[in-house]
Order: sequence, then C-alpha cells, then structure tokens
Amino acid sequence: MRIIDLIHKKKRGEVLSEAEIKFFIDGYVSGDIPDYQVSSLLMAICFKGMDKQETTDLTLAMVNSGDRIDLSAIDGIKVDKHSTGGVADTATLIVGPLVAAAGGKVAKMSGRGLGHTGGTLDKLESIPGFNVSQTMDRFAEIVNTCGVSVIGQTGNLVPADKKLYALRDVTGTVDNVSLIAGSVMSKKLASGSDKIVLDVKSGSGAFMTDVASAVELASMMVDIGTLAGKETHAFVTDMNQPLGNAIGNALEVREAIEILSGEHSGDLKTLSCRLAARMLILSEIFTNEEEALAEIEKVIKNGEALKRLAQMIEMQGGDPAVTSNIALLPATKKVVEVKADKSGFISSMQTYNLGMSALLLGAGRTTKDDIVDPAVGYWMKKRLGDEVKAGDVLAEFHVGDKDPAESIEIFKKAVVIGDAPASGIKLIYDIITP
Amino acid sequence: MRIIDLIHKKKRGEVLSEAEIKFFIDGYVSGDIPDYQVSSLLMAICFKGMDKQETTDLTLAMVNSGDRIDLSAIDGIKVDKHSTGGVADTATLIVGPLVAAAGGKVAKMSGRGLGHTGGTLDKLESIPGFNVSQTMDRFAEIVNTCGVSVIGQTGNLVPADKKLYALRDVTGTVDNVSLIAGSVMSKKLASGSDKIVLDVKSGSGAFMTDVASAVELASMMVDIGTLAGKETHAFVTDMNQPLGNAIGNALEVREAIEILSGEHSGDLKTLSCRLAARMLILSEIFTNEEEALAEIEKVIKNGEALKRLAQMIEMQGGDPAVTSNIALLPATKKVVEVKADKSGFISSMQTYNLGMSALLLGAGRTTKDDIVDPAVGYWMKKRLGDEVKAGDVLAEFHVGDKDPAESIEIFKKAVVIGDAPASGIKLIYDIITP
Repeated sequence: MRIIDLIHKKKRGEVLSEAEIKFFIDGYVSGDIPDYQVSSLLMAICFKGMDKQETTDLTLAMVNSGDRIDLSAIDGIKVDKHSTGGVADTATLIVGPLVAAAGGKVAKMSGRGLGHTGGTLDKLESIPGFNVSQTMDRFAEIVNTCGVSVIGQTGNLVPADKKLYALRDVTGTVDNVSLIAGSVMSKKLASGSDKIVLDVKSGSGAFMTDVASAVELASMMVDIGTLAGKETHAFVTDMNQPLGNAIGNALEVREAIEILSGEHSGDLKTLSCRLAARMLILSEIFTNEEEALAEIEKVIKNGEALKRLAQMIEMQGGDPAVTSNIALLPATKKVVEVKADKSGFISSMQTYNLGMSALLLGAGRTTKDDIVDPAVGYWMKKRLGDEVKAGDVLAEFHVGDKDPAESIEIFKKAVVIGDAPASGIKLIYDIITP
Repeated sequence: MRIIDLIHKKKRGEVLSEAEIKFFIDGYVSGDIPDYQVSSLLMAICFKGMDKQETTDLTLAMVNSGDRIDLSAIDGIKVDKHSTGGVADTATLIVGPLVAAAGGKVAKMSGRGLGHTGGTLDKLESIPGFNVSQTMDRFAEIVNTCGVSVIGQTGNLVPADKKLYALRDVTGTVDNVSLIAGSVMSKKLASGSDKIVLDVKSGSGAFMTDVASAVELASMMVDIGTLAGKETHAFVTDMNQPLGNAIGNALEVREAIEILSGEHSGDLKTLSCRLAARMLILSEIFTNEEEALAEIEKVIKNGEALKRLAQMIEMQGGDPAVTSNIALLPATKKVVEVKADKSGFISSMQTYNLGMSALLLGAGRTTKDDIVDPAVGYWMKKRLGDEVKAGDVLAEFHVGDKDPAESIEIFKKAVVIGDAPASGIKLIYDIITP
C-alpha cells in the first residue's frame, strides 16, 4: 500500500477502505508517512469528504493509535458529556454535580482552553488548591464516592489526534465534518465512558456557524458512537451569544455555584439541566425527561447538587468552602463597567470576538505556554434581544494586570445594538439520537 | 502575510494576488514555508484552479527564484522548442539541425528522461564522445558557428520548480494545468530564448490524455509566454502512439539521422518539419509555412541539415562520422523480433506502457540515479490503423543485459489488435497562437 495511491483515490472522490485508513493513521503516527503527504490527503478529504463508514474507520484507527482508559473500577453506567466548544460554556461544572446528585456517574477527562473557548481544567484550577492531576485509582475512588470527578487527560490517549490536529491547524484543513467528528469521537471513545451526550454548538462563536452543518456534524458523531457500540445522543445548541453570563475562569466557577445553589438561572442553567436529564436517561436512572428534570430541580433545591461539587473539590485538594463563599475565589482589584453607546436592541453578537476579548484580558491562551489569570474576565448584563438604553451597563469587566482597552474595544464592536432584536435564535435547535 | 491565509483563500476558490503568489514561492524556496503547508495549498489549487493571471504570476515568481540565462552573445532571434514529453519523440534532434540549416538559431537546454519518456540529453550521449556540459561562452560559440547546440541545464535555473515538482510528485498534485504550465514555462522563460514553440502532447502516452485538456494547457502556456513578452505558439499533437518508430537512445539518434538524410519519413518527420517551419517563421526568416517547408525539404535534400548535426556533434566532442555511418552508434548484440499473435488491425496502443517497456529494457530511468543503456530499445514496424497478420513482426527488440521477457510482455499487451483500425487519430489536433 502506498500513501500516494490513497491521495489519488480520495482526490478522485473514491471511498477509502478500512485497511487504507488504518495504513494512513498508523503510518502517520509511526512517522513513516510524512506531514506533506498527510496534509495533501487532508485537503483532498476537505474537498471530497468521507462517508459514515470511512469516518468511523478513521475514528477507530485513531482510538487504536494509543491507550484506552479502563473505567471498570467505577460502578454503574458512566456517561460522558462533551461540548464542541463555545464561549461561557460552563455546563460541565454544572452537569457533573447534577447527574451525580441524581444518582449517575460522571468520570470526565477534560481539556484546557485554547483560542476563544475556555477550558474546564482552567476553570477548576481557579479554585484554590484544586488538582486536576489524579491517578486512575484515585479518579475511580472520587467518582465512586461523590459521583463526579473531572481530571486532565492521562496516558497516551489518541496520539493520532494530537498529531493530526496540529497539522490540520496549520494547513487549512480544520473545518471538515469527518475530521472534526473523528477528532472528537476518538477522544470520547478512548476515554472509557459507556455512553456519550454531545453538545454541538452552532453560531458566531462555534466551529460550525450554521445550524445545518452543526446538525450534519452531530449526526456523524452519533453514527460513529453507535457504530462503535457506545450509545451517543447529540444536542445542537446555540452559540450566537455566550451561553452563560460569565466569561473568565473564576467568574464561570462562580456562575456554576450560583446555578447549583438555585440563585441564578438563564440559558446556561436551562441547557445544563437538559443535558443532565439526557445523561440520567442514558444512565438508565430515569426513563423520561420530565422525571429526570424534576429530580434535577429537587437536587438543586435541597442542596445535594452543590454538596456533590463541594465533595469533588475537597477530594481533589481544593477548598470546598468556595461553594458557600464565592469571595474565596480569586478576584481582581478593579472592576470596570462597559456601557452602551446608544439605545436600541441587542441584535447580534460576534461571539468568537467576545471570547477573544476575554482572552486578551488574560483569561485564555493563544499558545499552549501562555499563563492564564484566573480572576480576570467579564460578566455580561445583557442578552440577545434585550432592549438597552445608551448608558446601560453591558458588562462588568474584571481587570487584572493587562490594559483592558483593546479588550473593551473588541467587546463593544462585538455586541451589536440595532433597531430590532435578534430573530431566529433558539437555545436548542435539535437533538439527534441513533 | 501568512501562508495559512493563502491556503484558506484558495480553498474558498478565491484568486491569489501577485504579491501573495510571490510570497508563497519565495517563502517555499527560502525554506520559511514548510512542505506540509505547500502541499495543502497545491491540493487546493488542484480543486479550485488558478486563472490566467495567477498562472502567469506563479510562472514569473518561479523564474525569479533563480538565474536567467543570457543568450545575448548569440546573434539573431533565438527560438526554443519544447515538448511536454512523449514516447519516441526525437523531434528536437531533427528540428534543431533543420532550423539551423535554414538560417535560424537554436540554443537549447534540455533535460534527461525520467519515467516513460526519453530525454534529449540521454539520446545525444549515446553518440560516442558527445558532451552535453558546455560553458555558456562555448554554447554561444557553437550556436553562432553551426546554428544549433543542445546542452544540459547550467546554473541555478528555476529552483522553485525543482522543489515544487519533487513535492507535487509525491503529494498527488501533478495534474493541474496551471501547475504544469508554470513548471514548463518558468524553465522556458528562464532559459533565455526570444520566442517559444511548444509541442503539447495528448493521448495515451501523455500527461494530458484528452485533446481538450491538452488544448487548455497549450492555451494557458501561450498566454503566459505572451504576457511575459515572449511570443509563444503551441502545437497540440498526438501521443496515442509513439511519434517515431525508434524507442531507445541510440535507436532514436539513428532515426533522426535517417530523417535528416532523407532516407526515412513518417509522423516524426512530418511533425518535425512543421515545428521547424513554425520556428523559422517566429525567427522572421520566412513569413509563411509553405516557403519554410520548401526550404526545409531543400536542406534535407542538399545535405545541409545533416551537416549541421554533424558540426554540432563535432563541436560538442562527439564523433561526427555517426551521421554517415550509423554502425558507429552503440548497438546490442541481440535483436529479437516480436510478432503479432493474431490478425486484425492495430486499434489502439497503451503508449505509456510502450515507454515503460523500453525503460525496463534499460533505455530509461525510474530514479535519477539509474544508469541508461544507450544501445537498448526497440524499433516499431507497425502504426495505428495498420492491418497485421498473425506472425507479422510488430517490433525489433534490441536487447542488452536485462532479460527482455517482462518488457516484451508489456509491449504485446500495449499494442492492441482489434477488428477495426483506430479512429479519430490525427497527428496535429490544433495550433494555438496568441
């Protein structure tokens, strides 16, 4: 088998066999196939696509390039939850304790933020003492005790994805639905949970800017999960504005705590509850959404959900008192109000730029080596469709060492005040099941 | 400027600016832009194409990546002739002396054979003593004296093409018309002639297998030459069978000598005379083809054309006596007749495989380091449309050290004997002028 023949085949729009895809992935990971041949194949894939079977073969070949996590030490059905990435998407911090409090098991390996999206690990690390590095034994112990744990990736998980993603990033081959699906699903399949709930974002702050491509991606991933023997459901949800109000690591933890304690609501809470309900159904704890949602409201009201978060924080070395006293979270000395220049309606948001605005304050990374300031970020006071008057506060900027001027300028350009409210925006566009 | 933005732009089908193309070529040659980004851009070009202006900008950026040959020491208008490559295409060896004998100047830098096509330098080196390495001063002196010289490339000519071609070859990006046109024309423009006659091959032994794509390529190259200020005419000619009868280096020299001495005719002679006539018109020696062709016939009959070949051979260190005594050329000890297995008409030829058959005898190279046997090859006795009887000789194989079995097997499969002669074959399909 020769990689050049595979390139020609895909260029002609033909289907690659399982053996050919395995040859490609194995050869790339081993170094036998050089970057320049892979990048030309990836570009041909961008133009000619891969079908469902090819994408599944790609995903499984990627899974097999490294270790698989064994979660058998954890009792019960483990359901994973994954978002394709967005701004103010703090759902994992809320969903995990909700599912745990309602009797489910969430053993989640998460990633760091890069670019305009935040990372769950960075958020958790804003809690004083919290340690995302845990042995597999301790990980199982934490989940068995409090129902939820979130740690960083361990072991040599999907090296093919690490190598391919780095290449795609610099060769203009990121935006193909099969390559995205393979990248997401290989990591999910390797990380050991039994079932998977996906949150595929669509809009101005997402990889997929339109609903149709988000639905296509969601369907592809549900198919892959199913073909690989792990039941997968996918929500297609809105990212035309930040999901929550808080953008920035400690601020997002605060918002999660406020939601879990029943003090705060909004789209982030609504979606987190829906995702948690779906995970409880896949966990076979509930058979319908109404019952699951009722239980979720109950564990918020009775404090059980917040207690699970406090337990997890404590077992991972952090200070559980943050859940009752947000003043223990890192905070900036300076808070700046950003106000509307004119009156009207919030008609659209450049959500990607809203993420970049927070990144420039120090909340995120442009390269892996950047250091994140946990305290900085901003709290949005308005949402799409809201009426505003000139002088109304649009957001409170929590400012650290960096001059916030550029960040605020980008923010103000990104929040568009027009004559009419935004239309066509829904929180949940679709739910894809096998 | 960033190469990733150029990749995205071309992927969306947009036009690259002159500055962007220059950035790409300069960055690749300098090593600032890595292979893996260039190969992904090349694949996007294969899918989205380049327009006439982009292709010209590409060609000129490639020319500017290295030296340009200065032919000002040679008197008169220098006209170059270039074939896109085919089997038994010995036209350069015939056209050069014809044009010289009729008063023109041919200062040609040529290449070596690789793959299924022969190379003019390899053919000339089958003449005992012939030296293709000459200084530029000596090159000018030879052309000024006998009107024609053929030497190997000197200097750092179009390094961008060397690097790009090597990458295209291994990344499935050879077959784009703009990339082919840029590769051919950059070398022609850098090698210093004033005007150019192209012979674009079409058919089973050519890069372009159908006439329409050959015409597209020819038009693109004529446009580039014209935009670059060098009048360019292009013939689109047939490569559905070997052009001449001889395939193999010394055999092709022998066929050229026989044509120049008036002893032999056929498609190779016809096309060579037409190409030479066009070069004489571009040289402003004749104003119409009839007069030019009449002069060409005259210099064949009066021996002047053969004399020019002999002169050139002598001035480049070779034995000019070969022009009157072909027995001085290298010859094999063994000649094997290959016969028709059945009766019928020659209905088609897999011309690419006919080239490969000669290569396997030792006439060509699969890699740059292979050593060519000048004496081996074969002489075809039949052409497309000929009626044959079982047992008729199809070709005489001149066999050297290598076992000819595989070569003969490929040959016999490649010459298809059917019930009806081939149809739709013409020697010259089109002539493209600015």
